[in-house]
Amino acid sequence: MQATTIIAAKRDNKPLSTSQINWFVQHYTQGDIPDYQASALLMAIYLNGMTRSETFDLTMALANSGDRIDLNDITDFAVDKHSSGGVGDKTSLVVLPLVAAMGVPVAKMSGRGLGFTGGTLDKLESIPGFNINLTPTQFKAQAQQTGLVLAGQTGDLAPADGKLYALRDVTATVESIPLIASSIMSKKIAGGAKGIVLDVKTGAGAFMKTLDDARQLAQIMVAIGEDGGTELDVTAVISDMNQPLGQAVGNAIELREALDTLRGGGPPAFREHCILIARHMMMLAGRGQQWTEEEATSDALEAQLDNGAALTKFREMVVAQGGDPAVVDDPTQLEIAPVQHVLAAAADSYVARIAADEVGVAAMRLGAGRPTKDVAIDHSVGLTVHVNVGEKVTQGQPLVTIHAHADSRVTECINALEAAIDLSQDAVKPLPLFYDVIQEA
Amino acid sequence: MQATTIIAAKRDNKPLSTSQINWFVQHYTQGDIPDYQASALLMAIYLNGMTRSETFDLTMALANSGDRIDLNDITDFAVDKHSSGGVGDKTSLVVLPLVAAMGVPVAKMSGRGLGFTGGTLDKLESIPGFNINLTPTQFKAQAQQTGLVLAGQTGDLAPADGKLYALRDVTATVESIPLIASSIMSKKIAGGAKGIVLDVKTGAGAFMKTLDDARQLAQIMVAIGEDGGTELDVTAVISDMNQPLGQAVGNAIELREALDTLRGGGPPAFREHCILIARHMMMLAGRGQQWTEEEATSDALEAQLDNGAALTKFREMVVAQGGDPAVVDDPTQLEIAPVQHVLAAAADSYVARIAADEVGVAAMRLGAGRPTKDVAIDHSVGLTVHVNVGEKVTQGQPLVTIHAHADSRVTECINALEAAIDLSQDAVKPLPLFYDVIQEA
Repeated sequence: MQATTIIAAKRDNKPLSTSQINWFVQHYTQGDIPDYQASALLMAIYLNGMTRSETFDLTMALANSGDRIDLNDITDFAVDKHSSGGVGDKTSLVVLPLVAAMGVPVAKMSGRGLGFTGGTLDKLESIPGFNINLTPTQFKAQAQQTGLVLAGQTGDLAPADGKLYALRDVTATVESIPLIASSIMSKKIAGGAKGIVLDVKTGAGAFMKTLDDARQLAQIMVAIGEDGGTELDVTAVISDMNQPLGQAVGNAIELREALDTLRGGGPPAFREHCILIARHMMMLAGRGQQWTEEEATSDALEAQLDNGAALTKFREMVVAQGGDPAVVDDPTQLEIAPVQHVLAAAADSYVARIAADEVGVAAMRLGAGRPTKDVAIDHSVGLTVHVNVGEKVTQGQPLVTIHAHADSRVTECINALEAAIDLSQDAVKPLPLFYDVIQEA
Repeated sequence: MQATTIIAAKRDNKPLSTSQINWFVQHYTQGDIPDYQASALLMAIYLNGMTRSETFDLTMALANSGDRIDLNDITDFAVDKHSSGGVGDKTSLVVLPLVAAMGVPVAKMSGRGLGFTGGTLDKLESIPGFNINLTPTQFKAQAQQTGLVLAGQTGDLAPADGKLYALRDVTATVESIPLIASSIMSKKIAGGAKGIVLDVKTGAGAFMKTLDDARQLAQIMVAIGEDGGTELDVTAVISDMNQPLGQAVGNAIELREALDTLRGGGPPAFREHCILIARHMMMLAGRGQQWTEEEATSDALEAQLDNGAALTKFREMVVAQGGDPAVVDDPTQLEIAPVQHVLAAAADSYVARIAADEVGVAAMRLGAGRPTKDVAIDHSVGLTVHVNVGEKVTQGQPLVTIHAHADSRVTECINALEAAIDLSQDAVKPLPLFYDVIQEA
């Protein structure tokens, strides 16, 4: 087999065979195929696309390129979730303990934030002492004992995906739906997941700007699940990311909102979002005979929030990972920067736009996010967005509160927020929370 | 400026600016842009093409990436020719001394053969002592004194083209018409040419398999000439390469056929081919006020072959470059391997096909060509193809003579030739020599 033959086939829009894809990924991972051949193939894939079976084959080749976590001794059908990333998206912090409280073990690896998108690990690290670096043994032991673990990547999972992703980043081949789909799915599969709920965001603050693109990405990932047979089951929820999710944008401040929600409070839309994601995770877990669809009702899940069971599960995880449970018991102990500014409505009006990406950039400018990798972030700063698109506001009503230290970055943040928010004299329709749910046939 | 921005623009089919192309080529030549970014751009160009002005800009950026030979002190409008490569194509060996004999100086750099395609330098090196490695000073001095020089590349001409070509070879991006056009033209321009006759081959033994592709390549190269203004004038001749050109395929054997032609003999079709190419070179030289179109008639050119003036010019070049003129004076002194086999017609029939590529491969198998770079070739071996497509042959009539040493490769060669040649009971139309001539408007 030759790399150029495989590149030429994709260039000429001829389908690649399973063995061609396996061979290319294996030799690229080993370093036998140089980056310049991989990048030519990536550009050909970007422009000519991949068939459904090529996308499945690439996913499995990436998943098999390194270690694979085996969760079979914990549960015969491990479930996981993945969000395509957004602003204010602290869903994992609520949904995972919620599902775990229902008796479904969850062992999830998560990532850090980059650009205007926040990362679950950064939010968790607002908890003093919380350790996200677990060995594969620790990771599995905690899943077994606590039924809930949330950590950074452990083991050498899908190294080919890591290598290809870095190459895509510098060769303008990131925004390819089959490449995105296989990248996401390979990491989840290597992490031991069999049932996967994908929260595919669409809108200004999402990677997929249009509903059509989001639906395409969702469909191909659900198709990968179908092609994976009984060992893989995928549900994709398409949710709105035109405006931030919930009110809090930052790290400690998002953790506080998650804790409020785990206590039965929190912004109603965010709670609704969490319940739906959790319900789909429960239904997937049910296919592994742990749960019946009837039991996985929204009512049952809401009860776990309202009766404190989900919060207790979260606390167990914090203790198991060396974090200080005091901030769970009393979120006012979380270090959150003082209020430095409140943006208020200039006139009686309707909220027409709260651009999620621009709000994310505003928070990043405060220090809540990383413009580039390896930049240190400030867990204590952030924003509270008090309103939603479509809401009627009166003159002087707070729109956003800036939690920051007294420095020049506050001015930058105010400017960015002013550009991000539009008010209108005409009534504006609220944005939906969800657009679609795509499941295996 | 960023490499990814340029790659993304081409990926999205947006035109690249002159400064973007210059910047990319310059930084790639310097090694600041890695191969993996260049190969992503090449694949995007392969799939999305290039506009006329992008192709011109790329040509000039490549031409300007290293040394440029200045021939202005020899002639104010230097002419050159380039063949896109074929089997039995010894045209330069006849045309250049012919044009030089007419008083138009020619300073040409040529290449070696690869695969089934022969190279002018290899054929010249059949002359004992002939030196193709000249310094830029020697190259120009000989052009001045003799009016004819034919050597390997001298100086660091179009290094970006060399680097990009090597990358295209391993990334399945060779067969792109704008990339081929800019590669050919950049080297000619860097070599000092202003008037360029392109012999674009089409057919089984050519790089451009279809007339349509050959015409596209020819048109874009003529367009580059137009866009180059008064400093550049291009004529493209589209000629047949379904069957070998002339009778001889090899090195010494092709040189012998060229010498026969320079003496007023040689295969009539080959002579006609040479006259046409020479006439177009004369017409381009005329635009530089060295020659009027009326003077550059076929009759005038034929006279230079028949009266020995072209042969004398060739002999002057051989002497100037250290070669033994005895083989020019008496071509029987050329070392040519003995006849080892004659392929004859099995029945009275018509010649239906003499696949140029397969004949080239057969000659390569004897040792006349290089399957890969750095393989030593045997100048003495080769084939004589006695017939042309469309010719009526009688049973037992020789079709091909194999000049070789007694070794196992002869059997391989016979097998390859038998597959390359088809005879038919039905009459077959002869192939044309030329399909089209494309000139600047």
